[in-house]
Amino acid sequence: MTPRSAPDRLLSVLAAFDHEHPALSLTDIGRRAGLTLTTAHRLVAALTEWGALERDASGVYHVGLRLWEVAALAPRGLALRQIALPYLEDLYEATHENVQLAVRDGSEVVYIEWISGRSAVGVHIRVGARWPLHATGVGLALLAHAGQEAQEEYCAAPLARFTPHTITDPAKLRRMLAEVRRTGVAVSSRQVTEDALSVAAPVRGPGGVVAAAVSVVVPQADAQVPVLVPAVRLAARGISRALGWRPPKEP
Amino acid sequence: MTPRSAPDRLLSVLAAFDHEHPALSLTDIGRRAGLTLTTAHRLVAALTEWGALERDASGVYHVGLRLWEVAALAPRGLALRQIALPYLEDLYEATHENVQLAVRDGSEVVYIEWISGRSAVGVHIRVGARWPLHATGVGLALLAHAGQEAQEEYCAAPLARFTPHTITDPAKLRRMLAEVRRTGVAVSSRQVTEDALSVAAPVRGPGGVVAAAVSVVVPQADAQVPVLVPAVRLAARGISRALGWRPPKEP
Repeated sequence: MTPRSAPDRLLSVLAAFDHEHPALSLTDIGRRAGLTLTTAHRLVAALTEWGALERDASGVYHVGLRLWEVAALAPRGLALRQIALPYLEDLYEATHENVQLAVRDGSEVVYIEWISGRSAVGVHIRVGARWPLHATGVGLALLAHAGQEAQEEYCAAPLARFTPHTITDPAKLRRMLAEVRRTGVAVSSRQVTEDALSVAAPVRGPGGVVAAAVSVVVPQADAQVPVLVPAVRLAARGISRALGWRPPKEP
Repeated sequence: MTPRSAPDRLLSVLAAFDHEHPALSLTDIGRRAGLTLTTAHRLVAALTEWGALERDASGVYHVGLRLWEVAALAPRGLALRQIALPYLEDLYEATHENVQLAVRDGSEVVYIEWISGRSAVGVHIRVGARWPLHATGVGLALLAHAGQEAQEEYCAAPLARFTPHTITDPAKLRRMLAEVRRTGVAVSSRQVTEDALSVAAPVRGPGGVVAAAVSVVVPQADAQVPVLVPAVRLAARGISRALGWRPPKEP
């Protein structure tokens, strides 16, 4: 095993925690981080003292409040979500369906916010969840506005199938992305689950660069797409304006 | 200067970022973290490669999405806030005033969630903000249910004054905390700003331990406290139930 740098070892302790493992014993952390128990103990102690980790009564470790406070400064995380929340709430009040805000990280979408109606379709995606770009509405909206190289690279790679309706043909995906750019909205029907449909629109920052995407996920069976499109577009424009985007002057 | 451990140095880079300094150059980071430029460069590179930091086009560093994803696992951070959000939204829809969720960290409240009506009173507290316990409604609700020692320690220390109405007399604070325990709600009037009033209630986890507090902040001038109390209580009980709390059986 190649020697690992000090930062690498410390970060591997943080990386030991994920949604399947939100609470870990010292032994678990050592094993998952590939560290000796002695090293794990030393690093966990330092992280706990700083507040990046918290030890509960049972001796199990969780991610700590101090780390959350620092992470709240992430411009593409909580900061973006704070600016967007009022508009997401308006979209939720208008539709009473699942509403989400996502950003692109390489070939995946990362969900920054998720407001779910307790009565809404049973899609269970948590904040911080990742998903491939081609299957979801937000993913299509983000990919359609990514750089040409990024799009070509994505279309060239194998496209994972989740349902019989998932687009896995690169040519078909390219046509869909062109359609998204033309219409300004992305509609993904039954591509993630058999019963769900999502309508998404890109969120632009200053200068018009697409910074995020907003969408609603509804039951495909009785989806009123023409009704959802303007609502999602409006929410996306509202967030874009709050981020400092201004619509281009009409000639 | 005493030699610093590797974890301490790496964490000092993260600690260099705060709400006044969400974006920093490499030089700023080195200065604020008390590191040589060489060390800062090495640590920032490691953190950026891992995704804890992100470097923008102008070469300035921000907190990265990856750190935000790990922090989303903090039980007292995003995890708590995800469970609470639907109830906070209901409280917002019922009052259309500022709604917040906070936890106690030592002698301070830390705001985990903040939903503000665009028309609501101009209190501007950001998610992640800290505030002393004795002045805010959520702080009083949390302090009233903290351990006896924690309460005594807090009352023994000097109490900061923010307005002429801020409680700074320990005896008066003790009486107020007893009142909060008796009534199950905390009302803080004009203690933080001259024009605001907040009504807060404790949120309990499994076993009945107080894990957080929820509140509404309204303009003091036309505050309808008797109307707000049941709404805040209901929201607090809803979140408590979602956290696994069950009300004690009546005899």
